[in-house]
Amino acid sequence: MQISPCPPLIEGGWENLKALFGVVLKEEMMEKINHTIADIKLLDEKSMAEARIRQDGLTKPQGSLGQLESLSIQIAGIKANPRPRITHKVIFTLAGDHGVTQEGVSAYPSEVTPQMVGNFLRGGAGISVLARHVGARVVVADLGVASVLEQHPDLKNKKVAMGTQNMVRGPAMSREEAIRSIEAGIDLVEEELGKGIDVLGTGDMGIGNTTASSAITSSITGTDVASVTGKGTGLKDEDVDRKVKTIQKALGVNRPNPKDAIDVLSKVGGFEIGGIAGVILAGARYSIPVVIDGFISGAAALIATVLSPLVKSYLIASHQSAEQGHKIILKFLGLKPLLNLDLRLGEGTGAALGISLVEASVKILDEMATFAEAGVSEKN
Amino acid sequence: MQISPCPPLIEGGWENLKALFGVVLKEEMMEKINHTIADIKLLDEKSMAEARIRQDGLTKPQGSLGQLESLSIQIAGIKANPRPRITHKVIFTLAGDHGVTQEGVSAYPSEVTPQMVGNFLRGGAGISVLARHVGARVVVADLGVASVLEQHPDLKNKKVAMGTQNMVRGPAMSREEAIRSIEAGIDLVEEELGKGIDVLGTGDMGIGNTTASSAITSSITGTDVASVTGKGTGLKDEDVDRKVKTIQKALGVNRPNPKDAIDVLSKVGGFEIGGIAGVILAGARYSIPVVIDGFISGAAALIATVLSPLVKSYLIASHQSAEQGHKIILKFLGLKPLLNLDLRLGEGTGAALGISLVEASVKILDEMATFAEAGVSEKN
Repeated sequence: MQISPCPPLIEGGWENLKALFGVVLKEEMMEKINHTIADIKLLDEKSMAEARIRQDGLTKPQGSLGQLESLSIQIAGIKANPRPRITHKVIFTLAGDHGVTQEGVSAYPSEVTPQMVGNFLRGGAGISVLARHVGARVVVADLGVASVLEQHPDLKNKKVAMGTQNMVRGPAMSREEAIRSIEAGIDLVEEELGKGIDVLGTGDMGIGNTTASSAITSSITGTDVASVTGKGTGLKDEDVDRKVKTIQKALGVNRPNPKDAIDVLSKVGGFEIGGIAGVILAGARYSIPVVIDGFISGAAALIATVLSPLVKSYLIASHQSAEQGHKIILKFLGLKPLLNLDLRLGEGTGAALGISLVEASVKILDEMATFAEAGVSEKN
Repeated sequence: MQISPCPPLIEGGWENLKALFGVVLKEEMMEKINHTIADIKLLDEKSMAEARIRQDGLTKPQGSLGQLESLSIQIAGIKANPRPRITHKVIFTLAGDHGVTQEGVSAYPSEVTPQMVGNFLRGGAGISVLARHVGARVVVADLGVASVLEQHPDLKNKKVAMGTQNMVRGPAMSREEAIRSIEAGIDLVEEELGKGIDVLGTGDMGIGNTTASSAITSSITGTDVASVTGKGTGLKDEDVDRKVKTIQKALGVNRPNPKDAIDVLSKVGGFEIGGIAGVILAGARYSIPVVIDGFISGAAALIATVLSPLVKSYLIASHQSAEQGHKIILKFLGLKPLLNLDLRLGEGTGAALGISLVEASVKILDEMATFAEAGVSEKN
């Protein structure tokens, strides 16, 4: 058999075809993210107005439960229900490794990431204890741990790659990997919808991920690196200097475009951070209040809100982290934290405590008696 | 029968006898308070040191759970147990009325005090909802409501009098009544010990009691009245002015001695405030962590700590109230609040949320795995 020569269109057109294929791939891959974003609604004003009326009729001076009152009204708007209830509480704790740890930016070795995943699965970690305390279930997922994790019925395998590349030498990941990490986060939420999610919390595990989060925060908020870089898990002062210089170098090498969240994520992000951004987007898309944890979840929230500013109204800041860049994130997002306990563990520990306050706020709205019901006299 | 004349000692000695009887009465009445104070111990240093070692060995960067860590160590010291557990959570919500409401210092009428007691007993109040949320039981007690309350199996009758006197015309209560209110608080705790109290919270209900609390705070902390006087349940600005002048007048008329807590309580206090001071003293005496609520409980804590400075180390400030004088109380007591949610309801609502954080802190200490147990690598 004689092989016929390639027709002219294909011959000499490989580069065109690859480029075309690349665009199609990119569009297809962004499809899930774009659909998710397109389905995010404004909060329901009618439910919020009804919730406000009910709050003002409850047996207490108006406004005397402060942030618990405004929180309950936000939840009413998110759920389009003037008297929402919370039964199913879910914390998504996503793990990934960071190539930038080669630069000595963390007080702990990378092997701690998979070890801590094991600790989550055995119920011995901080998030395990606090999730039990508040009655939440924890979904643990591998988004990009740099080792092969043993299979476990409670571990979701969403591995995009074996850790990111070292961001001082080039992008932490490809644009496609960045998209896949966000989509994996969306998938995680969608896979849990059947079991019920009335409120969700975000959490992270990843040695080196405060470095990635500082880089993201500096890029998106336009703040200088030193102001958003802290001690992470416990660096010494001189090591923080090196961390700052590493991030400055990475931003110089990669020049992420702050208007393009996928670009920022791919250049200086992490797989678990992309995953958390996906969890946040999906939370908003499915009308679920999103309780964000500390600095890493905050960086993910920056990614998510650049993709869709509507997401902001679905966010609840559980706490103000001890990590200094977090304050800048919360200010940028216009969020007031519920707690300020100098936490800096991550994993979703702050989110767990925040979820309990969210639940308290809707119970107040739902269960308290009104002045009329209780026969209590109103204000003079 | 002929009545014999009084013997010379008694005859002409009535005044002496009355004075003698008064002293005996006062000493006898102070006996319970004095015994309670005498039994308050320093925190157990050995348990605290052991708890610190355990905290530092848990699978998290040292110090990364911030205030939750220090809280767990305080509880270890209070309970003289390096790994304490909390099962029984009790909130004491004490009610009393205030004669000073005649001066128009509150946005609500006094009849709300007994109405709200009814609301507590039916489970429809803010404290009812939040206590259920955190799994605490509420002990509701009448320390001095200005009306006869219907008997109820869940209402403790510790009424000292039908409300206080108007403090602008003289002392709010007698010295004996002040002592009795504190003792009633001690009794309340002692009566609950059999059912178990691993942590207690304090709460108040009493129309007019921010006025009394501002007067106590001004007197004991030596702060000017305007700086410690706020809107209470929701006064207008011009009414706050009248409230300030009323308190200034009351302090001028009564001149309480800030070194003598019983004097301050009797001159410008309230029965529920005295009761809460007693609850606090008893908490410390029985090695129970005392989670104080907001401004009114803070004023009671001032009374308790003047009586016994050792009490301070047993106190946990649940939250920073929106009522402005509270910040001054917390600073004076050297306490850092766990929450800052702009609450200003009282009843023990902030204490309920604080109790949940106390419980979280000891669960972290008790239930988290150590690095050794979990096979997680330690710091580089």
